[in-house]
Amino acid sequence: MGSDSDLPLMMKAIDTLRYEFGITCLVQINSVHRDLRTVVQHIDNLPPSVQVIIACAGGAAHLPGNIADLRADLPVIGVPRDLGALKGIDALLSMVQMPEGAPVAVMAIGEAGAVNAAIHAAKELAIADPAIKERLLAYAEKRKARVFQQNAGLHQKLEDG
Amino acid sequence: MGSDSDLPLMMKAIDTLRYEFGITCLVQINSVHRDLRTVVQHIDNLPPSVQVIIACAGGAAHLPGNIADLRADLPVIGVPRDLGALKGIDALLSMVQMPEGAPVAVMAIGEAGAVNAAIHAAKELAIADPAIKERLLAYAEKRKARVFQQNAGLHQKLEDG
Amino acid sequence: MGSDSDLPLMMKAIDTLRYEFGITCLVQINSVHRDLRTVVQHIDNLPPSVQVIIACAGGAAHLPGNIADLRADLPVIGVPRDLGALKGIDALLSMVQMPEGAPVAVMAIGEAGAVNAAIHAAKELAIADPAIKERLLAYAEKRKARVFQQNAGLHQKLEDG
Amino acid sequence: MGSDSDLPLMMKAIDTLRYEFGITCLVQINSVHRDLRTVVQHIDNLPPSVQVIIACAGGAAHLPGNIADLRADLPVIGVPRDLGALKGIDALLSMVQMPEGAPVAVMAIGEAGAVNAAIHAAKELAIADPAIKERLLAYAEKRKARVFQQNAGLHQKLEDG
Amino acid sequence: MGSDSDLPLMMKAIDTLRYEFGITCLVQINSVHRDLRTVVQHIDNLPPSVQVIIACAGGAAHLPGNIADLRADLPVIGVPRDLGALKGIDALLSMVQMPEGAPVAVMAIGEAGAVNAAIHAAKELAIADPAIKERLLAYAEKRKARVFQQNAGLHQKLEDG
Amino acid sequence: MGSDSDLPLMMKAIDTLRYEFGITCLVQINSVHRDLRTVVQHIDNLPPSVQVIIACAGGAAHLPGNIADLRADLPVIGVPRDLGALKGIDALLSMVQMPEGAPVAVMAIGEAGAVNAAIHAAKELAIADPAIKERLLAYAEKRKARVFQQNAGLHQKLEDG
Amino acid sequence: MGSDSDLPLMMKAIDTLRYEFGITCLVQINSVHRDLRTVVQHIDNLPPSVQVIIACAGGAAHLPGNIADLRADLPVIGVPRDLGALKGIDALLSMVQMPEGAPVAVMAIGEAGAVNAAIHAAKELAIADPAIKERLLAYAEKRKARVFQQNAGLHQKLEDG
Amino acid sequence: MGSDSDLPLMMKAIDTLRYEFGITCLVQINSVHRDLRTVVQHIDNLPPSVQVIIACAGGAAHLPGNIADLRADLPVIGVPRDLGALKGIDALLSMVQMPEGAPVAVMAIGEAGAVNAAIHAAKELAIADPAIKERLLAYAEKRKARVFQQNAGLHQKLEDG
Repeated sequence: MGSDSDLPLMMKAIDTLRYEFGITCLVQINSVHRDLRTVVQHIDNLPPSVQVIIACAGGAAHLPGNIADLRADLPVIGVPRDLGALKGIDALLSMVQMPEGAPVAVMAIGEAGAVNAAIHAAKELAIADPAIKERLLAYAEKRKARVFQQNAGLHQKLEDG
Repeated sequence: MGSDSDLPLMMKAIDTLRYEFGITCLVQINSVHRDLRTVVQHIDNLPPSVQVIIACAGGAAHLPGNIADLRADLPVIGVPRDLGALKGIDALLSMVQMPEGAPVAVMAIGEAGAVNAAIHAAKELAIADPAIKERLLAYAEKRKARVFQQNAGLHQKLEDG
Repeated sequence: MGSDSDLPLMMKAIDTLRYEFGITCLVQINSVHRDLRTVVQHIDNLPPSVQVIIACAGGAAHLPGNIADLRADLPVIGVPRDLGALKGIDALLSMVQMPEGAPVAVMAIGEAGAVNAAIHAAKELAIADPAIKERLLAYAEKRKARVFQQNAGLHQKLEDG
Repeated sequence: MGSDSDLPLMMKAIDTLRYEFGITCLVQINSVHRDLRTVVQHIDNLPPSVQVIIACAGGAAHLPGNIADLRADLPVIGVPRDLGALKGIDALLSMVQMPEGAPVAVMAIGEAGAVNAAIHAAKELAIADPAIKERLLAYAEKRKARVFQQNAGLHQKLEDG
Repeated sequence: MGSDSDLPLMMKAIDTLRYEFGITCLVQINSVHRDLRTVVQHIDNLPPSVQVIIACAGGAAHLPGNIADLRADLPVIGVPRDLGALKGIDALLSMVQMPEGAPVAVMAIGEAGAVNAAIHAAKELAIADPAIKERLLAYAEKRKARVFQQNAGLHQKLEDG
Repeated sequence: MGSDSDLPLMMKAIDTLRYEFGITCLVQINSVHRDLRTVVQHIDNLPPSVQVIIACAGGAAHLPGNIADLRADLPVIGVPRDLGALKGIDALLSMVQMPEGAPVAVMAIGEAGAVNAAIHAAKELAIADPAIKERLLAYAEKRKARVFQQNAGLHQKLEDG
Repeated sequence: MGSDSDLPLMMKAIDTLRYEFGITCLVQINSVHRDLRTVVQHIDNLPPSVQVIIACAGGAAHLPGNIADLRADLPVIGVPRDLGALKGIDALLSMVQMPEGAPVAVMAIGEAGAVNAAIHAAKELAIADPAIKERLLAYAEKRKARVFQQNAGLHQKLEDG
Repeated sequence: MGSDSDLPLMMKAIDTLRYEFGITCLVQINSVHRDLRTVVQHIDNLPPSVQVIIACAGGAAHLPGNIADLRADLPVIGVPRDLGALKGIDALLSMVQMPEGAPVAVMAIGEAGAVNAAIHAAKELAIADPAIKERLLAYAEKRKARVFQQNAGLHQKLEDG
């Protein structure tokens, strides 16, 4: 995160990683716009257990791109925040239009993006961890079951008028 | 790909994967808009060696999203194509605004996005493959060296006036 | 619909079909992003009485396009939902920019679009059903009469000042 | 059409209707911006054989909307043209954001939209005409076959390098 | 106006015309999307005292353009309404991108546009009416005086802290 | 005009005024961004024969707005120029979003806007000049006749295939 | 400022200049759209102690550009205001797309932009004033310290759950 | 610059600084996306003679923002480049929407922006250097003279017809 105001949004990702996929997160505020040198240090010295990075930002949204610049070896996922007058379209473009060589994998603006960042991170970790793959498939089954329930509830609602 | 007209763009990704990272690709045209049922079969029956999927599309750009819908277990990377009157902004939004549960990891519109999809895929595979991690770091060194060369060339150009 | 959260919007279409044009609807939640395979089955096995399909979605909005991909024989009408940071412009572009071969007939974002989807569906069914054509003409007369009433009310309001 | 400069785009629709679906078209220039009264007459006096209307326009793009205003009994399909500085986004919004009561079924900007207007029209007519339904299914089969061919050609291209 | 829901916005124009410039208005609801034929009649039969037309609309916003199509002899001023998901940008483009031959003079979206439509109309009428020209200059003086007052108030506010 | 590079676009307006409506123009370059004080002088000292002002600009496009600021007594028509990366959308918004009190009557971006500025100016002058009103009606007849010719030519083209 | 309604936004800049950097401001309302001639006088006669100008505006936002037109010798900083239907994107483009010769240095839309205008002005003044340079560095240290605090608070929050 | 492909655009700024204002530039390629650590070193170790920084970038455009993050004591001017599918709107938003605390002073997209960056830099340096202030005023006079010449040329052109 770039600021603690990003925490409510990022909790969506943290909780999904923790409760759905049993993945532990290291949570840090890394503010490129307030202290870029410390961010460079933090990102250079992440413990080797860190395998995927999720970064959230609004407005000019440099954090995910800068992390991608620093870590040529780790996948970086970006979540644009719906912040200020431009409603996140600025953050989306600032993240997604990265030049050749430093990819940021960008998710949807806001909450759906935060949850999806967690799921995409789990998919990346599942390449080397069959237990996570199992949990991803179980999570998908839960989502399918909800459609079934919603369809049942729908017909009830329509009958009730 | 959704069509063979995507091939020139996707060759950027294929070549990067092959020549920079030594990663073999399975290349397929999967056209959801012409034959969705076959796409479902293809994607359901990908060989187990497939660990990451890169999908490219223009316009309404449903292919990456539909693959994400089908494979809850594999990371899906999307490359929006600069196609038609809206110059890829339609494809970008169609890919990136996926709802909670089915993430597409979106790259930049066009060539930078195609190369970056390959690099991001390599980063995902590097989680389980130290040899790819080495190549990613070597690739980053090459990119840095080019900055050094460009700076040298720049001063030559400025002196030559 | 892709989710039961679409129901309030879709009720505008359902009620218009039912009360204005006497057309019965089959209402289903078909979530391509949660269970694409079941959507394929549902859409492949629609009863032959289904002659027109109305699909509503927000964000990446793949549902109408995927139904158009699956049913080369039925007209598909799309209603973009005003959902999330981008206020429906993402859903509009994701639906309207369908490639050659798989048309989605797109209506306005939100409530006007939902009602208009119902009217356009009625117009399609009226090709083969003169009773519906009568109701369409009666509906148009009602709308004209309201202009007349509004004009009368307007002059009252202006006089009252 | 609003002008004869729309003809090259509209020929895509006309040819698709004629050669793919055996549907005859009545082709007219109806310029609301040059002669609205005559457009009203033309549209009021269309021969009863006209069952579906396709209208193309660029810029402020009032033609499809005005036809929808006039014919409460016929489905109207709109094709936004990529014309002028705004590349068709003006025409798209002018058509798609119709108010409740007068639907225009909007297709993609440009050529894909013109062909899709023809296909959607054919789908509407197929409600009452099983022969057209057959041709729609045959057309879909041709499109699927092309994916198969493209996949074959693709592997040839990749082998040839 | 296209609907009586436009009245609160149009009252800004009506009041400005009446109280600032002493200009009488004929106020009508002319709904092209509900009754285009009647609009043609109304606009064709405006009393000769009508010298300028102000039209307000939201969404696809055809009313000002259609009036411009019908009256080659009268200036038409358009006010885009901030209505629905797209916040008036749809109405703005639908009005301003009129093709060669049928001009609509477009004002700002919303209230500023409504007041400005009245002022611009007064300027047009002032070409032939020196009394209105006087009132326009007096109105400008009032606006200037308000800047003077605001500056005075500002320094008070800043001193008060 | 703000610069002589605007001349080709403005010739469309000048020629329309001169040859279609017999209206003489005073043509000046008034560059607010290079010499605002002289613009103030020029605009303050326009000969009394000037009754309507047409101003063209691209990019930040302050010229029409500044003239409207200076002349509370004359109608000002703005033509946004398609100039630079943003294709005129910057000029359009800079002109049309004028605050309450200083209206600019904005036309379409580019050539259609230039011609329409001339026609709208003629309509304004026609309020006090019946001869111009006649020419406006004659001009409209010519435009109608062209539709008739285009329809004839169209059927020829379609027959020739 | 163009109006006293800009004061709450501009207080962010005034307070930052005063309390963070010890810089005194001359605060004026200069309304180009209500009284351009007085603005020209004010700007021409600024006391020589004025070394940098910050201008705030919404909508068509001509104020910063016009000041830049008038003062070829002073840096002008623009703050776009989030005002009206277009949420400040109109003001941003009206300011930033200035033609060659008359630069406006544009900041973010809204509050962040107002504070940043103050900081950027301080940086400009610091070129000739080492005391301000010291305060800028101290300000940066405060911002860095806040990241440290936020990180500490974050871990507390995460532990508290 | 972020890459030597930015040189043609930046030459506009360099030449303006050198030939119009007699200001010497230090020209460097600083690629945050290829070698962020070296950029931090370069920017931390700029010679004390550097008083203003101009940074140019396209796409995600992090360079100006990152320099602003690093140098709390120097004004940073950003020039968005018209690069790729989105024509510079991505670079503009990535630069201008900087959060509170780290201002980038943004100029127009492309060439006008590059020249204006040089002029704005000269204005900043002129605060402490009366000779540059003289050259700025002389430059403004040249620009005014060109308007005079263009007006003369214009009347010649109009007479030649």
